[in-house]
Amino acid sequence: MITQRAFRCEPWSLTEESLNLDMLAQTESVFALSNGHIGLRGNLDEGEPHGLPGTYLGSMYELRPLPNPEAVYAEPDTSQSVINITNGKLIRLMVDDEPFDLRYGDLRHHQRVLDFRAGTLQRVVEWESPGRCAVRVRSTRLVSFTQRAIAAICYEVEAIEGEVNLAIQSELVANEDLPEVTRDPRSGAVFDHPLVSEEHAAVDHRVLLVHHTILSGLRVAVMMDHELLEGPADCEVRGEAFDDVGRVSVIACCPAGTKLRFVKYLAYGWSASRSRPAVADQVSGAMLAARHTGFDGLLAAQRQYLDDFWDRADVEVDGDDEVQQATRFALWQVLQAGARTERRAIPAKGLTGPGYDGHAFWDTEMYVLPVLTYTLPEAAADALRWRQDTLPLAVERARQLGLGGAAFSWRTIHGEECSGYWPASTAAFHVNAAIADAVIHYLWATADEAFAESVALELLVATARLWRSLGHHDAGRGFRIDGVTGPDEYSALADNNVYTNLMAQRNLRAAVALSARFPERAETLGVDDAERDEWRRAADEMVVPYDAELGVHPQAEDFTRHDRWDFDSTGQDQYPLLLHFHYFDIYRKQVIKQADLVMALYVRGDAFSAEEKARNFAYYEALTVRDSSLSACIQAIVAAEVGQVELAYDYLGEAALLDLDDLEHNTRDGLHIASLAGAWLALVAGFGGMRDHGDTSQAGGLLTFCPRLPGAISRLSFRLVYQGRRLSVAVTGAEATYELREGEPLAIEHHGSRVTLHLGHPESRPIPPLVAGPAPSQPSGRVPIRRTPGSGMG
Amino acid sequence: MITQRAFRCEPWSLTEESLNLDMLAQTESVFALSNGHIGLRGNLDEGEPHGLPGTYLGSMYELRPLPNPEAVYAEPDTSQSVINITNGKLIRLMVDDEPFDLRYGDLRHHQRVLDFRAGTLQRVVEWESPGRCAVRVRSTRLVSFTQRAIAAICYEVEAIEGEVNLAIQSELVANEDLPEVTRDPRSGAVFDHPLVSEEHAAVDHRVLLVHHTILSGLRVAVMMDHELLEGPADCEVRGEAFDDVGRVSVIACCPAGTKLRFVKYLAYGWSASRSRPAVADQVSGAMLAARHTGFDGLLAAQRQYLDDFWDRADVEVDGDDEVQQATRFALWQVLQAGARTERRAIPAKGLTGPGYDGHAFWDTEMYVLPVLTYTLPEAAADALRWRQDTLPLAVERARQLGLGGAAFSWRTIHGEECSGYWPASTAAFHVNAAIADAVIHYLWATADEAFAESVALELLVATARLWRSLGHHDAGRGFRIDGVTGPDEYSALADNNVYTNLMAQRNLRAAVALSARFPERAETLGVDDAERDEWRRAADEMVVPYDAELGVHPQAEDFTRHDRWDFDSTGQDQYPLLLHFHYFDIYRKQVIKQADLVMALYVRGDAFSAEEKARNFAYYEALTVRDSSLSACIQAIVAAEVGQVELAYDYLGEAALLDLDDLEHNTRDGLHIASLAGAWLALVAGFGGMRDHGDTSQAGGLLTFCPRLPGAISRLSFRLVYQGRRLSVAVTGAEATYELREGEPLAIEHHGSRVTLHLGHPESRPIPPLVAGPAPSQPSGRVPIRRTPGSGMG
Repeated sequence: MITQRAFRCEPWSLTEESLNLDMLAQTESVFALSNGHIGLRGNLDEGEPHGLPGTYLGSMYELRPLPNPEAVYAEPDTSQSVINITNGKLIRLMVDDEPFDLRYGDLRHHQRVLDFRAGTLQRVVEWESPGRCAVRVRSTRLVSFTQRAIAAICYEVEAIEGEVNLAIQSELVANEDLPEVTRDPRSGAVFDHPLVSEEHAAVDHRVLLVHHTILSGLRVAVMMDHELLEGPADCEVRGEAFDDVGRVSVIACCPAGTKLRFVKYLAYGWSASRSRPAVADQVSGAMLAARHTGFDGLLAAQRQYLDDFWDRADVEVDGDDEVQQATRFALWQVLQAGARTERRAIPAKGLTGPGYDGHAFWDTEMYVLPVLTYTLPEAAADALRWRQDTLPLAVERARQLGLGGAAFSWRTIHGEECSGYWPASTAAFHVNAAIADAVIHYLWATADEAFAESVALELLVATARLWRSLGHHDAGRGFRIDGVTGPDEYSALADNNVYTNLMAQRNLRAAVALSARFPERAETLGVDDAERDEWRRAADEMVVPYDAELGVHPQAEDFTRHDRWDFDSTGQDQYPLLLHFHYFDIYRKQVIKQADLVMALYVRGDAFSAEEKARNFAYYEALTVRDSSLSACIQAIVAAEVGQVELAYDYLGEAALLDLDDLEHNTRDGLHIASLAGAWLALVAGFGGMRDHGDTSQAGGLLTFCPRLPGAISRLSFRLVYQGRRLSVAVTGAEATYELREGEPLAIEHHGSRVTLHLGHPESRPIPPLVAGPAPSQPSGRVPIRRTPGSGMG
Repeated sequence: MITQRAFRCEPWSLTEESLNLDMLAQTESVFALSNGHIGLRGNLDEGEPHGLPGTYLGSMYELRPLPNPEAVYAEPDTSQSVINITNGKLIRLMVDDEPFDLRYGDLRHHQRVLDFRAGTLQRVVEWESPGRCAVRVRSTRLVSFTQRAIAAICYEVEAIEGEVNLAIQSELVANEDLPEVTRDPRSGAVFDHPLVSEEHAAVDHRVLLVHHTILSGLRVAVMMDHELLEGPADCEVRGEAFDDVGRVSVIACCPAGTKLRFVKYLAYGWSASRSRPAVADQVSGAMLAARHTGFDGLLAAQRQYLDDFWDRADVEVDGDDEVQQATRFALWQVLQAGARTERRAIPAKGLTGPGYDGHAFWDTEMYVLPVLTYTLPEAAADALRWRQDTLPLAVERARQLGLGGAAFSWRTIHGEECSGYWPASTAAFHVNAAIADAVIHYLWATADEAFAESVALELLVATARLWRSLGHHDAGRGFRIDGVTGPDEYSALADNNVYTNLMAQRNLRAAVALSARFPERAETLGVDDAERDEWRRAADEMVVPYDAELGVHPQAEDFTRHDRWDFDSTGQDQYPLLLHFHYFDIYRKQVIKQADLVMALYVRGDAFSAEEKARNFAYYEALTVRDSSLSACIQAIVAAEVGQVELAYDYLGEAALLDLDDLEHNTRDGLHIASLAGAWLALVAGFGGMRDHGDTSQAGGLLTFCPRLPGAISRLSFRLVYQGRRLSVAVTGAEATYELREGEPLAIEHHGSRVTLHLGHPESRPIPPLVAGPAPSQPSGRVPIRRTPGSGMG
């Protein structure tokens, strides 16, 4: 299927040149604005047509039953789902008594621009009504990174040709009707009227609506206020409020060439515990501050915030303009998802759509936090503090499961387990290793000792205890972890999943080391020498199965004895397999949904020799169908490491363009934040060859680089923050240049050689020649699309 | 918990001497009457008090949704549930304007007797109303074995002391209110008003109600008619009918000593396809025939039918009167479940209650059909013909699962898969081997060549094709069947389950042999030499894992490497484990719910040496918690074979008394028909040591016996039908006597020696001395209750 690319290729923004009604839901996700607290899908200002209306607040959810026909002990009977809350984006427009609706009349021009440096979504429309009145509408929308509760829209209507009567209704609407949900298990649940009105008030240009959810009992307050910037003198403005609707109307008669322009400010707040007046005052206070700042002030602060972000985090990709754009889009979205989440979950879709019910999974820690750790480390720390906040629930969950320590939820918003299919959730204990790993990498990257003592230690101890209780010493044969599910969801309940065991091993060792570094705090957590010895012994004796005959590591015990999936008889329309084959058959055969053993080659690269990596990668490459958006970026990283840089480049393209080109056909439900983060990983860990394996007994880690570019990329440069410093790395085909841009001197490694960086003294090193084996093959029909720079993906 | 035994110990009946309201639901199951088509729970005639009202028709079900929060491809979203249909048992009685309700007034005497030879449930009550009127009520209820659509109740009221005014309302009631369902997954679903009225008519003493179910669209007609046998001359009788109620009222004034006595005849019929008039005429015709026979005629036919059954099937147990009674009760219940099922499913609970939603499982073939095969073979044949009738559904199911041949449903009424938890259902492919095994044993036991060609071959070919497609040849390492669930439900999705692989092996070999015996019919099924070779090769190379270090067979690959369940820390109140621990933990540890490898030792005893059997039995005995009612009888059989006869005797007690003593506390939902059948198996295959392993290439099998009694049983005798003959076997401590009671001479084996039996010439052989190893041990707290003859179980 080859379609026109939706967006113009440009370095710092994403421009849609015309409106495609069939792609509305997808572009609503792509143009969603968020600061991690407020999420506004890119719905048109006038509300309709729409793909999927969406206004979200981070961690604002409703409960819903999880019916299980044959109940399993300790499995949840309730789930949490993100809900579409009060929509403040709505600005309805009547042009001479005809609604401004782009499905009718004549749409002369429609452009939307998402600007990664301004942090705004701008829109320009020229439209002629069926009654032949022409207007130009411009809007600029932002969700503020600097004022967390605030979004704002500058809205302007101009009569182009003759005098028009304009009626504008700027609204707050709760309990919007939503389209029917699909049967795809990856979509979210849809609630009918989840909000109950508690208060509504209108004063002049300002309206307040307060609601609460029925089952979860969360209270949400939304206030809008308006500032008229330009318009005819005789504008009539009126505010009114009802249970589920607040409305400020502006009536004006505009001669040709005159503009009606105003700013709509939105303040959002929610609370599980504060009273109605307190939550109302909270949004009212935020509104006062925003009005004080003003729209220009918000714009300026937004740009300053982003200037600083790009100074720390920008990635330049010379030679592939599409990947350049996609990479900045990816960083922008990771920032939007994580910037101001502040001790709440970072969902798989950020706040761009209702997919996966707004749940957070392990990929937040394994894909998103690595990016934040090296670009906005305080956001990574906050995400881990959220996990710490949910520790009491995780400890209780472990107790329910008969385990020690903490068992974090596979999918959740508030902390409670929300999955409905335990073989791929409760049994996927590697989520706990992901949290520990994010902690370990955060410590290496920041040497944040306060965090180490107050957050990291508790998380590492709780997860180490889990592993110790989950595995057992099989006399003389090592420490086994049986019956668990690894990252690859096309296997389940297997023994000694190599990824899980190796991640648990590092988790255990990190707990040993950190508790030794903070003995007093460790003692308050009940850690003693005997327990540390148990952790050490479990780690040292960890079983890592190996198939000596094939010379590869089985993904889990006996995996390589299983029948191979019959790829040749599988039609391309039968992917993703999970929607066309029964799990029983998928689980029992050699077929890989997503990198699992290959992910271990990356994240526990220290546990494999270079030869093992190459052999394992080739073996699993032939079995991997990439039915998960989490796979391509990891395959890119390992492909690059084993010298298959052109293959890595293909996978980079897939990861980077997943949402912009809607490769999985579900971008409508929200963006794949982890895959977007994976584009950064593919570039930095893949072509930059960056690793931070460190030493768990030290406060900080050691950055190493083995950069190597594919032919099409002439130069790659990326910026990092590391232990309070700012670094940049620039790679060409011939050499890599490392620069310390801020901070104390730092030792790094380039292709195994130590390089010490000093401020103002860039160091260049040549890139050694490539030695790679033959290219591995993929399953029939699952070869990644060969990436040609600038060609687009489809 | 030691409670009074509920029933008097006697050889040919089950007498309850007084009414225990707390045990009503249990006794309703125990006193349920059925012929396999109609099932009437033992509810009191007057309807209340009740534990659980229940009136069932074989395979009469309603559909209900199976909600799955995370849908799995090809898993059912609809289930079938047995429903409580129109209750015809009700005979309400008013005594001088006070309802005959045993919760009030003074209950002087209450006795119920289930008579295994008469085939009736008799009741005698003496009751004094709160208003001091005393009456004696006698009722005799039967469900006819000879007239499949007919049940009848002879009801008599007698004024004991003074004149009483009696008002009797004999009713048909549809859509009865039912008690709330529990959360135990083993209970059934409850429907609110599942029946929609289509017709109601009352003529004189006769009432007809016709209803249909809403979703399954099944039509049910019930007719009652009444015959007044005795009563005052001025009796007033009136019939009336409404949508959900039919009523025949009798008003009479009875002086002391006079009786009002009548027979209520009930005719039941249902159809998925026949019209309302056709189904109404069907019950009307059955009613005409029953009225022609009359109640005494029905009683006489019932006794004659049962005399013949006991002549073929009786088992005598001298030395343990409780087991004697329990064994006849068990045979009675197996007969009730299977006698007139006639190409419909035989449910796990028979028609005694709504447990397991009225579904049939694999245990029908593995536990119930062996009893029927040797006592009422035509019923076994009909049960297998039902499976053949569902073949198109099973072929389609296999296709959905990407498999060849047929995949029969794990649980069903009509044939479609009805399970809601696939790791313990869809993955439990051994149900297909169970069907094949029942076919194979039926052929050995009957040499029924017509069945072999028209039924057996098609079933064996379809199941053999399933196994061939389910497994794969792992180069040089044999034919593997990965990722399936064996009988033990405390493991799931394991590789090379020994039981499954060995059963598949025999299935494949039987298909090879039978298709060679019927080449033309095989050709019409598409079987050619190449396919037969594939089956043969798969069978010959079948992987049977063995742990050489421990000298035992692992239940499935790597099983013996798993952690052992911590039995010492498991409280006795934490059984059954599935209600107190998560499956993830149960599955990954060495803990056995029910005989699996040990079942293989019995059903594929030809595949193990005597030493292997003893070692395996001891190993698994220490891991088996018997949280399934399917386990004890199999453990009894294998314990007896390996010489642990006293342990076998303990397990026999548990199997035989499971429902009479309500050992699993869920007899209220219906009887455990398979465990009842298991009591017969424990005696005949256990202490009688009977096997029929046969040779799949022959038309008939070879019966072998290795009898050996526990100390408490002085003599065991049992009767069998075999290849058209009638046999009896009598065993004492010293010798066994084999007698051919009817039919041509037959060769059998006694402890390995050939014995040829001729009519009228009993052959006695001594029993060789016992050589047994040390007694195996059970998990802490799971030692079976030591059986002391006549002591009762608790």
